[in-house]
Amino acid sequence: MSAGWFRRRFLPGGPLPEPRPAGPRSSPVPYHRPRFLRGSGSSPGATDASRRPDARPVRSPARGRTLPWNAGYAEVINAEKSEFNEDQAACGKLCIRRCEFGIEEHQEWLTVCPEEFLTGHYWALFDGHGGPAAAILAANTLHSCLRRQLEAVVEGMIAPQPPMHLSGRCVCPSDPQFVEEKGIQAEDLVIGALENAFQECDDVIGRELEASGQVGGCTALVAVFLQGKLYVANAGDSRAILVRRHEIRQLSSEFTPETERQRIQQLAFTYPELLAGEFTRLEFPRRLKGDDLGQKVLFRDHHMRGWSYKRVEKSDLKYPLIHGQGRQARLLGTLAVSRGLGDHQLRVLDTDIQLKPFLLSIPQVTVLDVHQLAVQEEDVVVMATDGLWDVLSNEQVALLVRSFLTGNQKDDPHRFSELAKMLIHNTQGKDNGATGEGQVSYDDVSVFVIPLHSQAQEGSGH
Amino acid sequence: MSAGWFRRRFLPGGPLPEPRPAGPRSSPVPYHRPRFLRGSGSSPGATDASRRPDARPVRSPARGRTLPWNAGYAEVINAEKSEFNEDQAACGKLCIRRCEFGIEEHQEWLTVCPEEFLTGHYWALFDGHGGPAAAILAANTLHSCLRRQLEAVVEGMIAPQPPMHLSGRCVCPSDPQFVEEKGIQAEDLVIGALENAFQECDDVIGRELEASGQVGGCTALVAVFLQGKLYVANAGDSRAILVRRHEIRQLSSEFTPETERQRIQQLAFTYPELLAGEFTRLEFPRRLKGDDLGQKVLFRDHHMRGWSYKRVEKSDLKYPLIHGQGRQARLLGTLAVSRGLGDHQLRVLDTDIQLKPFLLSIPQVTVLDVHQLAVQEEDVVVMATDGLWDVLSNEQVALLVRSFLTGNQKDDPHRFSELAKMLIHNTQGKDNGATGEGQVSYDDVSVFVIPLHSQAQEGSGH
Repeated sequence: MSAGWFRRRFLPGGPLPEPRPAGPRSSPVPYHRPRFLRGSGSSPGATDASRRPDARPVRSPARGRTLPWNAGYAEVINAEKSEFNEDQAACGKLCIRRCEFGIEEHQEWLTVCPEEFLTGHYWALFDGHGGPAAAILAANTLHSCLRRQLEAVVEGMIAPQPPMHLSGRCVCPSDPQFVEEKGIQAEDLVIGALENAFQECDDVIGRELEASGQVGGCTALVAVFLQGKLYVANAGDSRAILVRRHEIRQLSSEFTPETERQRIQQLAFTYPELLAGEFTRLEFPRRLKGDDLGQKVLFRDHHMRGWSYKRVEKSDLKYPLIHGQGRQARLLGTLAVSRGLGDHQLRVLDTDIQLKPFLLSIPQVTVLDVHQLAVQEEDVVVMATDGLWDVLSNEQVALLVRSFLTGNQKDDPHRFSELAKMLIHNTQGKDNGATGEGQVSYDDVSVFVIPLHSQAQEGSGH
Repeated sequence: MSAGWFRRRFLPGGPLPEPRPAGPRSSPVPYHRPRFLRGSGSSPGATDASRRPDARPVRSPARGRTLPWNAGYAEVINAEKSEFNEDQAACGKLCIRRCEFGIEEHQEWLTVCPEEFLTGHYWALFDGHGGPAAAILAANTLHSCLRRQLEAVVEGMIAPQPPMHLSGRCVCPSDPQFVEEKGIQAEDLVIGALENAFQECDDVIGRELEASGQVGGCTALVAVFLQGKLYVANAGDSRAILVRRHEIRQLSSEFTPETERQRIQQLAFTYPELLAGEFTRLEFPRRLKGDDLGQKVLFRDHHMRGWSYKRVEKSDLKYPLIHGQGRQARLLGTLAVSRGLGDHQLRVLDTDIQLKPFLLSIPQVTVLDVHQLAVQEEDVVVMATDGLWDVLSNEQVALLVRSFLTGNQKDDPHRFSELAKMLIHNTQGKDNGATGEGQVSYDDVSVFVIPLHSQAQEGSGH
């Protein structure tokens, strides 16, 4: 998100020290960070350099490390554009252990079966801002938070309908009926686990950044394949789409100061002290000036989806809480996203005005029932940071995906990685004959291509 | 909404005195309340009594007064079920005057052309609770609030894109570009006017009820036809649907403690004092009891769309902020809707806990571009209070509408009124052969049927 950073508050510095991983040291998750800090020299396979049209030094796009379990499944590809490599990624197998309950009342959780009980796959993209620290921490931490959250509810995920009590015993004979009336399904436990994991990870990042004197934040886009379903959790402006032969379906929506305007204005209305008298809560088509005083101008407040006119007062001339349009929209003149992880210390330049109260760490989760899709070999999910979607529409990406997969051999285990690389090249002013528009992204770009067919075939083991 | 009233807090009384109308006395709106207080004896055309299957005294469904401008257009039909006739309605021509600006700087609004400039049509349903007082006030007031709000912006509604300044003069040469970038359209001014009118009307109702020592609240569903578009504004659990030969489209969504759970829980999280230690913010599948203490049970909090498990503490045994399921769900054990007008004095029985902080008076507005629909003669919008939708689905209503309009003569000016009456009869255990289910509503039921063809033909005059 480096290019989306309006007022750069963080001066360039050397590569960050590797933060100590949060969560249990002996994690049973065979987990990998397929991406590298700039200058770490550990990139296994840098491909052809893609020349950027500007005059700055050219860095080669790095191909992410091909993970053992991951061969032929998905690979994250990063254009390595930013000064700090602020995009980070993680993927791996997610192994959920079963925790059995004893019969005794009030008995505590006992892990009687330390082996994996349920397995899934996990992919995550983190687009950092204000340095890579939060993104690196998230890439090291979020999967552990998610595993813990899932293990805390996995007993309830076995049946299609979770029991009211985790012990499985009904305290009240009509308990199953209440659960059914509320329509609570096993997938709701995974959604809840993802929501809680994001929040837990945000707390960890806050503590770690404070302890190490670092700063920064990141967006988070996570896909989890579990029990035949793909869960996509998003907090920020990355995006995941499903591409099939005759279908394009967006699996996430973006959270920016524009898309969350009413929530943000509402908060400023409830807590005006958050603006410290320096900003106006109201939205105008442009920032007002002295000439506008006394005029009736278009505006809208927190309760309005429509617009109205108001007579301009002196307080309306303050800097707007949300300012700018489209990709340029900024919260408090500072941040281009309204959800994500980190940013606990972030303040408006030269003030004590905090951004964190306006930010949500909670993702929106969508569920794709892969087993009900009649999945074809060419059906893929494309996950990418905003750098891709700034220059390519869903339709353009789908066009590129379909034409690439038609022209490449089905038994090439690397074809999905090559596809991800090709998508990135299309944002760098190269190989974009397919779209014919040649738009160029100056942001970091990271892409995962997840073939659904292998997921559907493999399913998830007990 | 009488049947949806969980704890009846208001004792029966005689008919309410006619409240003095809010807003200007010499309103240019030829405005009518087509419905009557029970016992007022002014019903012009009561039709055949429809026997209810229960043993209570039968009241005949009253046909609303046929308004002069309204013949053949729409008629509100009410089953007159409730003790107090809590459903109220209003419809009429909406005449917006033009207000010209002078050239002088800082010149005030001047009404130089008192004649109507823009005309539209207005239909509204108000489903009262805790007595009819708020519903009657809303039926007398909301159209005036809307007219005022529209007149305040009508100069900006003439062009497809409203000007940044209401005077039409650009203060900054790039003003039109900013308006275009934000995508602000003339219809956004109508949406804003509806949002502001609901809020203004709620303030008026609060003041009037306090002054007259009355209580109560109501839902509000409003349809406005203006400049070729139908605007549907909804705050509560009434509903409007579009029925065409090959299409059913819901034009509003319901706002209940269930649909607005996260907003309501979030508020209780932000202001725990609103619950006075008497309620728990958390949602459980059922109300917890002593037996549940120490168990891990399903729950969700304000930030969760999914579910998780928590160990039950003593504070979890309190009465839930939102309790019950579906039509039985209640906010603070009291109210079945989460948006509407009035309820300024409403408190939880025998406590000082107020409901108003949890209620929104802001409607959600949807826009139907009638001129782009290629409207057919049988295309109608059905607006009805929850009594209808409790027993008939959108599909059942559409089936009834289509079969009725096919079988009735096109030149019968009363056929849409007859259709509304037939729909009501279908909720009373009569005439419901078409749906074959024979469900019965014990709530008030009010229905408007708006034929779009006449609207599209007439358009709106300047």
